[in-house]
Amino acid sequence: MEKPALADHPINDTMKRRWSPRAFAPRPMPREDILTILEAARWAASSFNQQPWHFLVATRDEEERFAQLLECLVPGNQVWARNASLLILTVTKHTFDHNNSPNSCCVHDIGLTACQLVLQATELGYATHQMAGIEADKIRETYGVPEGFEPVTGIAVGYAGDPDTLPDDLREMELGARERRPFDEWVFADRWGQSAGF
Amino acid sequence: MEKPALADHPINDTMKRRWSPRAFAPRPMPREDILTILEAARWAASSFNQQPWHFLVATRDEEERFAQLLECLVPGNQVWARNASLLILTVTKHTFDHNNSPNSCCVHDIGLTACQLVLQATELGYATHQMAGIEADKIRETYGVPEGFEPVTGIAVGYAGDPDTLPDDLREMELGARERRPFDEWVFADRWGQSAGF
Repeated sequence: MEKPALADHPINDTMKRRWSPRAFAPRPMPREDILTILEAARWAASSFNQQPWHFLVATRDEEERFAQLLECLVPGNQVWARNASLLILTVTKHTFDHNNSPNSCCVHDIGLTACQLVLQATELGYATHQMAGIEADKIRETYGVPEGFEPVTGIAVGYAGDPDTLPDDLREMELGARERRPFDEWVFADRWGQSAGF
Repeated sequence: MEKPALADHPINDTMKRRWSPRAFAPRPMPREDILTILEAARWAASSFNQQPWHFLVATRDEEERFAQLLECLVPGNQVWARNASLLILTVTKHTFDHNNSPNSCCVHDIGLTACQLVLQATELGYATHQMAGIEADKIRETYGVPEGFEPVTGIAVGYAGDPDTLPDDLREMELGARERRPFDEWVFADRWGQSAGF
């Protein structure tokens, strides 16, 4: 299913096509596509080029590995994420390597790398869905995540599926309209709340 | 100056070309490009589609506005960011609108929107540089940012300039090689630190 952004101004086609479906068709994906998707994530910007991101990954053809990772998502996400081809948990490092001081951008920079990952996947024709709903304590325990590192999100990558395969409540969300706030609610100049006129 | 990523696997060309120079040529940019850049940011993903992002913006042809924003960056960034065409401060909202509960992804999602913004700008031919170095307290005071909102980063967008216009230390950074960690340092499977084999 396609659900392009109803953009008011011309934007990049991949950004327009990217959305977050829950219906995935369970098929394995080629290794070279995974390499390209990870490589795109790798070249994201980060504060002091720290690259605080760490990924825990599993592909659906590795059954045990995939089941282990799937169980680290909240139950509501497991329902549909089990059909993804590639599952990723993102983990960030709290401090900079060069001076051990706190990295105030360590969670922000997970967003930068995740965005590149999902856009690259979209460009290759995959569907992606990012999740806040992860079990952080379970991830720490299952994978042995050390002190000073923090699980942030989950990311599902796979083949777009049929919305009719989803439970009713999820199908309804799947078919709902995509909406964004107009600029004057969030693009300000001079003072908070004052529209910048875009 | 171009400084493409030395990617080990084929990635999107805009991602390959994006980097973070400090040399900008001080010229105003067309309004339609600013609209496209903001629109790309607008269509980023966010947890519960909260779109926690708020932008404080100034273009260089609005002298007072631009000076006000520039002074909210740390002095080391003001040195070069004064030549940008568009300056943005990102601010996030801590809670969800739908239930007032804390949004654990509110800073992460600034990364998602910022990534789309800089990639769209890169595609249009602009140079971009994201900054952790902002004066959060000054931003709160200058703009009247309300409780429950948090300044996160600054973003400079503009025309690529001549590295020779930079002070010696910044020129050296400008001309340095671009590097990223290999996958086996951050893409793990089964256990923390165990390479996923990519």
